[in-house]
Amino acid sequence: MKIPLPKINISRINIIQPKRTDKPGQVPGTFFIADTALPSKIFVYSYNANDLHELETDEIKEAVAFTEKYPDNSNWIDVKGLGSQDVLNYIQKKFNINTLVMEDVVHTHQRPKIEDHNHFYFVVSRMMELDKGLQLKNEQLSFLLFQNLIISFQEDYDDVLDPVRNRLRKNVNGNIRNLGPSYMLYALMDTVIDHYFTIVNRLGDELETVEDHLYQKPRKLLMYRIQGVKKLMVSMRRAAWAERDKLNDIIRSNNNLINPAIIIFMRDAYDHSIQIIDLIESMRENATSLLDLYLSLMSNKMNEVMKTLTIISAIFIPLTFIAGVYGMNFAYQDPKTGKVLTDNMPELYMPNGYVYVIVVMVVIALAQVWYFAKRGWFRE
Amino acid sequence: MKIPLPKINISRINIIQPKRTDKPGQVPGTFFIADTALPSKIFVYSYNANDLHELETDEIKEAVAFTEKYPDNSNWIDVKGLGSQDVLNYIQKKFNINTLVMEDVVHTHQRPKIEDHNHFYFVVSRMMELDKGLQLKNEQLSFLLFQNLIISFQEDYDDVLDPVRNRLRKNVNGNIRNLGPSYMLYALMDTVIDHYFTIVNRLGDELETVEDHLYQKPRKLLMYRIQGVKKLMVSMRRAAWAERDKLNDIIRSNNNLINPAIIIFMRDAYDHSIQIIDLIESMRENATSLLDLYLSLMSNKMNEVMKTLTIISAIFIPLTFIAGVYGMNFAYQDPKTGKVLTDNMPELYMPNGYVYVIVVMVVIALAQVWYFAKRGWFRE
Amino acid sequence: MKIPLPKINISRINIIQPKRTDKPGQVPGTFFIADTALPSKIFVYSYNANDLHELETDEIKEAVAFTEKYPDNSNWIDVKGLGSQDVLNYIQKKFNINTLVMEDVVHTHQRPKIEDHNHFYFVVSRMMELDKGLQLKNEQLSFLLFQNLIISFQEDYDDVLDPVRNRLRKNVNGNIRNLGPSYMLYALMDTVIDHYFTIVNRLGDELETVEDHLYQKPRKLLMYRIQGVKKLMVSMRRAAWAERDKLNDIIRSNNNLINPAIIIFMRDAYDHSIQIIDLIESMRENATSLLDLYLSLMSNKMNEVMKTLTIISAIFIPLTFIAGVYGMNFAYQDPKTGKVLTDNMPELYMPNGYVYVIVVMVVIALAQVWYFAKRGWFRE
Amino acid sequence: MKIPLPKINISRINIIQPKRTDKPGQVPGTFFIADTALPSKIFVYSYNANDLHELETDEIKEAVAFTEKYPDNSNWIDVKGLGSQDVLNYIQKKFNINTLVMEDVVHTHQRPKIEDHNHFYFVVSRMMELDKGLQLKNEQLSFLLFQNLIISFQEDYDDVLDPVRNRLRKNVNGNIRNLGPSYMLYALMDTVIDHYFTIVNRLGDELETVEDHLYQKPRKLLMYRIQGVKKLMVSMRRAAWAERDKLNDIIRSNNNLINPAIIIFMRDAYDHSIQIIDLIESMRENATSLLDLYLSLMSNKMNEVMKTLTIISAIFIPLTFIAGVYGMNFAYQDPKTGKVLTDNMPELYMPNGYVYVIVVMVVIALAQVWYFAKRGWFRE
Amino acid sequence: MKIPLPKINISRINIIQPKRTDKPGQVPGTFFIADTALPSKIFVYSYNANDLHELETDEIKEAVAFTEKYPDNSNWIDVKGLGSQDVLNYIQKKFNINTLVMEDVVHTHQRPKIEDHNHFYFVVSRMMELDKGLQLKNEQLSFLLFQNLIISFQEDYDDVLDPVRNRLRKNVNGNIRNLGPSYMLYALMDTVIDHYFTIVNRLGDELETVEDHLYQKPRKLLMYRIQGVKKLMVSMRRAAWAERDKLNDIIRSNNNLINPAIIIFMRDAYDHSIQIIDLIESMRENATSLLDLYLSLMSNKMNEVMKTLTIISAIFIPLTFIAGVYGMNFAYQDPKTGKVLTDNMPELYMPNGYVYVIVVMVVIALAQVWYFAKRGWFRE
Repeated sequence: MKIPLPKINISRINIIQPKRTDKPGQVPGTFFIADTALPSKIFVYSYNANDLHELETDEIKEAVAFTEKYPDNSNWIDVKGLGSQDVLNYIQKKFNINTLVMEDVVHTHQRPKIEDHNHFYFVVSRMMELDKGLQLKNEQLSFLLFQNLIISFQEDYDDVLDPVRNRLRKNVNGNIRNLGPSYMLYALMDTVIDHYFTIVNRLGDELETVEDHLYQKPRKLLMYRIQGVKKLMVSMRRAAWAERDKLNDIIRSNNNLINPAIIIFMRDAYDHSIQIIDLIESMRENATSLLDLYLSLMSNKMNEVMKTLTIISAIFIPLTFIAGVYGMNFAYQDPKTGKVLTDNMPELYMPNGYVYVIVVMVVIALAQVWYFAKRGWFRE
Repeated sequence: MKIPLPKINISRINIIQPKRTDKPGQVPGTFFIADTALPSKIFVYSYNANDLHELETDEIKEAVAFTEKYPDNSNWIDVKGLGSQDVLNYIQKKFNINTLVMEDVVHTHQRPKIEDHNHFYFVVSRMMELDKGLQLKNEQLSFLLFQNLIISFQEDYDDVLDPVRNRLRKNVNGNIRNLGPSYMLYALMDTVIDHYFTIVNRLGDELETVEDHLYQKPRKLLMYRIQGVKKLMVSMRRAAWAERDKLNDIIRSNNNLINPAIIIFMRDAYDHSIQIIDLIESMRENATSLLDLYLSLMSNKMNEVMKTLTIISAIFIPLTFIAGVYGMNFAYQDPKTGKVLTDNMPELYMPNGYVYVIVVMVVIALAQVWYFAKRGWFRE
Repeated sequence: MKIPLPKINISRINIIQPKRTDKPGQVPGTFFIADTALPSKIFVYSYNANDLHELETDEIKEAVAFTEKYPDNSNWIDVKGLGSQDVLNYIQKKFNINTLVMEDVVHTHQRPKIEDHNHFYFVVSRMMELDKGLQLKNEQLSFLLFQNLIISFQEDYDDVLDPVRNRLRKNVNGNIRNLGPSYMLYALMDTVIDHYFTIVNRLGDELETVEDHLYQKPRKLLMYRIQGVKKLMVSMRRAAWAERDKLNDIIRSNNNLINPAIIIFMRDAYDHSIQIIDLIESMRENATSLLDLYLSLMSNKMNEVMKTLTIISAIFIPLTFIAGVYGMNFAYQDPKTGKVLTDNMPELYMPNGYVYVIVVMVVIALAQVWYFAKRGWFRE
Repeated sequence: MKIPLPKINISRINIIQPKRTDKPGQVPGTFFIADTALPSKIFVYSYNANDLHELETDEIKEAVAFTEKYPDNSNWIDVKGLGSQDVLNYIQKKFNINTLVMEDVVHTHQRPKIEDHNHFYFVVSRMMELDKGLQLKNEQLSFLLFQNLIISFQEDYDDVLDPVRNRLRKNVNGNIRNLGPSYMLYALMDTVIDHYFTIVNRLGDELETVEDHLYQKPRKLLMYRIQGVKKLMVSMRRAAWAERDKLNDIIRSNNNLINPAIIIFMRDAYDHSIQIIDLIESMRENATSLLDLYLSLMSNKMNEVMKTLTIISAIFIPLTFIAGVYGMNFAYQDPKTGKVLTDNMPELYMPNGYVYVIVVMVVIALAQVWYFAKRGWFRE
Repeated sequence: MKIPLPKINISRINIIQPKRTDKPGQVPGTFFIADTALPSKIFVYSYNANDLHELETDEIKEAVAFTEKYPDNSNWIDVKGLGSQDVLNYIQKKFNINTLVMEDVVHTHQRPKIEDHNHFYFVVSRMMELDKGLQLKNEQLSFLLFQNLIISFQEDYDDVLDPVRNRLRKNVNGNIRNLGPSYMLYALMDTVIDHYFTIVNRLGDELETVEDHLYQKPRKLLMYRIQGVKKLMVSMRRAAWAERDKLNDIIRSNNNLINPAIIIFMRDAYDHSIQIIDLIESMRENATSLLDLYLSLMSNKMNEVMKTLTIISAIFIPLTFIAGVYGMNFAYQDPKTGKVLTDNMPELYMPNGYVYVIVVMVVIALAQVWYFAKRGWFRE
């Protein structure tokens, strides 16, 4: 029974991911900005339980000055685009950041990790986004967490963090306003991980659509889809495992930069990362099963084709042979001597020879059909 | 030798499971109830070694008041259906529950886990049920365990917990009456895990039926069954591993909410979870072996089809060729000159030409049959 | 070169194993005896370095009284058949056994394990036996170890423990007589594990026989055998791993029920369990390799069949076409006008037309044979 | 839609790697130089924050004397080529090196490792280089690290270390000049590991090229490429895991030969080694997926070929049979008696017999085409 | 381009390995000698830095007496062949050996291990040897290590230990002469492990030869070779892992039977065991890849065969049909009435009918060739 199938997306599944491009042997501890990096836009949020001040600027000096205006506030400097060397240099100098850290900020192929540098934490998250055509964008989101300040760096102007910004604006006197930059760190990281669920669920839906199609008409396109989903899964699993390790490290860290009241939230994020890994693993197994299913179905189809060929050939080839025999021109008379050659195909001159032959042919054909039916070749 | 095979269930094997539907970036620490959630029905059991008082109500206030009537009793508040915001809000406020916990109660895609919140434990179990058509229902069962009270939350009105209710009613002065809410927690969790055995055994029976069928007539439907069972296994394994981890955490916890006399029972439940994982793993291996078997059998069948085609074609094609040769019309005389062309097919004018040709054909056919028999093509 | 092959056992490979049959939610801490359980026969051995007293009875009271006659002796109560409720009840009461333990004794699907209950140890072993038709019987053997007494429970009247009984009878003043019940525990467990070697070796021989057959004539039956052996291996591995864990727990336990002089023997048994796991793992890998081999050989055979078909078809189809062409009836004269149609098949009226055609056919056939030979289709 | 594909490199993918060639049982603690080893060239760098002195020589005495000229400098003795016994002997004696260490220096199949010999560290790295034809050169780079001196040994005159030399020369007052030989050790090891990224990225590009080709025209060469990449991956993974272990050992070591300021750099190198392992693992999974894809595509192609054959055969074989029937020579008259045989093929003498037969043939052909179309054999 | 291929060894790859033959339940702590064991030959070496005394005898008493002649010397008693009960009994009594140990000496299927019995160490190694026909001999080499004496037991008269004996004889004042029996233990074990490299390298060469052949002409024999190598690898890996564990145990042991100066050598042997495991693992992966390659190549070959068949059939079947049509005997005149049947095959009476038909056939054939060429069936 055919039910209408959901449409299959036919665009190519792909990953857009930064590659490590720096030359080996480059002076460690210096950082060069990629040519393709976007110029930085800076957004500053200075907030406490009651007030929120925002600033958008291109000048890092201005941004830092803005945060210093409200010494008791928590501050978030949101740097979008890593293309402005002066912004990065100023931050490095101003906040006394190790060059290795700045290097990791701009070489955007880092695994999620946390590094404790005493006066600050350096944290890396992988921010993933799946566009409509199932292209996976795998971007780096880095954080520098200080006592009253968190600085975030991202490659693109777009991100998945707007829900956090909205909460910050609307949620007067909520946790996000009261618990300082380490809560902000949690909120940002958790939003990133939560977005993994959205992606995995979309991929899961894709797999289910593919499965429905497979059961009705297996075809090459479906295999491409499954392979594509598996490729994304491999990529996401790498990120998710590292997220898990990072959150585990945070939960166990002792640095007083993290507000102890936040550990319980971090544990929740940790649980999410475990759930995501779990989900990805079972989805990968399902994808593998679907591939096996595809292959079995293709080989079933092949069997069916072969059986059709075999049945038709096997029935007609012997019959054609018989027709061929009675198409031979063995002579009734020797043309030279006129002697009748009675042994040469006397069947041809029998009154009912033709009828007999046709009957024999029908019997042979029926015997074969019966044999094939008994073997079950007509079933399934 | 054919023995009558057990019937195969032909309905689709499937999983019904809550998906994570909340939008990423939602304010953590708030909870929204799904639109599809059922309104809550509340069942209260207040019991001690000798007495048992029951109440069914829709009002959580009434339920809580009921438990407070018997201050020395143990109490179980059984909340079925998570659709009543007021019930949840009241419980949160009354018992001072962290919002993150309430969120996990209503977002019913949590992994089994235990969280120690000092004045209470939060415990999640996955309650599984397999309907007749092999649809696996994967529901969340959450517990809040207090000193004298256990509150359980489940999504549906149906569950697998009736045996516990019966024991509670009938087993006067039994462990279930004497050992307080932590024993009730154990009894409920153990009943849930025990039900896994029922499910795994049913799936095992399914696999054995499929195996019996496979050995007699391999066909596509059987492969679908095996794939379906594997899918359920993947899902159950995820739950069973998490159950194991949870029970391990309980055994090692020090909170005095758990009656020490119950640890030995928890260990028994832990053993059960290990057994279940063991069983699932071997069943998964068996399912994989069955798939391999199916594929081998299909390829055997294909071989058989190909051999039939090849034998028939190989025997008749040369014979048909010979018949074709003697069906050629090379002329005995040049029609223009009347000159006899003695080299043109003199065989046709031999007295026994036809007989010789038939003999030659039979010899060729027999030689081929002999050759194929020697190669073993007629065996198996 | 064919050597005579060993016979292959054609009976179905199978596992006979208790399934968990108790209903979920049964009162934990009670035990119900399966309907199929055999009535208990009790054998008592009371022994010291010099003397051995034996008793066979159906009455547990009598058996216990018998052990109390010789207060300084070690005693072994060997309970065969678990169908007598009174026997089990008496033992539970007399020796103050937790109900959970008694439950595990009669629900004979437990994993091997050891539980330390202070005044006694509860130990479970899986006793395996392979009958001639390669049916694996997987029975539970449970022990209660006290200071001067060991009680063993088994499901069937048959077992693999006779060597221990013989040693007990003949080995006057040997370790078995001197080292008390904990040595008896060791001797029984070690005999059980040693029997695994016998089973694995028989399965190994089976695999080698199958391999020899495979190299000479691959066929479906062989694949069934390999699949069967793999199934048994999966089952044995589960048991062997648990045996290993159990022995490890015993070696590390501190309870003075275990005579310290016996730890060295336990370590030896532990070594055996490791060896068994090792053996099973490599045998499983070999079984998998054999399956791959089978599949490759089947696909080789298919290749050979296809090549035969292709060679014969490819050679004769073009020749048959040529014969067909000269079997066409294009007329030499227009029958209406009598005009000679010189372009219609003049070959038929050439003096050597037939000879030429035969030569052309032979050339085409040879060219094809040469081409296929060059392609290596006649090799292997 | 065809896009122009990148060229595929058609040279064979290969590994050039030292094999263990010493005979077993050789006196441990002696070392013999391989016959193929190159004579040693020695480069000495003696440097501090401001000055750099270089020397190129063949004489190890001269080199050591050179380092002693500047007692406060850090020194790097760079030995290229391991063919000069006197060089190695002198170093062994002069610096009091255990013979086992010298043996590991010349037997260049060691895994990456670090050995703490109190007065010096012995460190092994595997230096990999991929030439244009995708030949992987897997060379050993060994270090002896002393307080003020590092000696490096490599097999070939070429290496991947020029970036470090350039930095040493240009980076006046940089870390490399100030932090002593242990920073030099770090710089060299990190450059080696960084080069792994270059290699893995090139192999990743290769895989992507292969994938693009696969989707357009799958062919055998592509499979060879994938297999080749997998082989290199296996080799690199072995090295990368050992690098990781080595760096972990260094980070945890307490010997004061390692400047504590360098641990943070070592941790960075450790992160790189983790990233490399991660990358290799996902690339290996991708390579495996590509192989599966190749096989599926080949089997799709086969399906297509078979369907073509089957459609053509199935349509024409019955038609040919019909034509064969009407090519039979059953006689209209008995030649002896002249009696008309009305049952012998009366169709041949019907006014429209030919037309009818042609019509029947067309109908049969169309019916088959319709049947195959319905079955979906003309799609995809 | 064909290069001359190295020869392939065509003998069967096999393992000769002792099986566990003792019956389960045998009295643990007694040992029975296998019927096939060789009578013992005893070689004694008594040595110090300057002197070496050797003795060959059949009498164990004589051998022990010989070692007692030089009380300050180190001694090695080398027992070849385990068939002499009196030798083993004498050793057991004389040196006070636990019966379990003696049992392990004669039951030669033990895993490598070390057991610390206070006054002596019991050590087991697996000595492997590959004969020319790639038969792997897996023999047990056991050691008893005392303060001044090491006794070794081996099953056969042949072994791989001659290099150690030569070193002992020639290396006056070397480590082997000075460092006592524990160095001798090291030297023997290391020689055994080193021999694994020789074996693995030979198997690696075999795999490379097979790979070269595979790329030129894949055939069944090659698959047998790969399967054989995999089988040996499984066996060697088991031994190598246990060797690793054993060496690790030795390095961490505190018994003063091991000269502390030897730990560094043991660590070297440990490194070797790791390298061997590494090598085996990558070789196993390569063997698996080769099998995949073989299967792909076979399926490619099959494709090629099928394409040939399909092209030839598809081209000629329609042509043969056309020829068949014009071979039909539809009559020009009704023989009874003499009426001309103008609709019966008028083509046959057209002046150029034959030419037209030939042209049509050529066109059809070319069209098909063009179509197949476009589909890429003639490529590769």
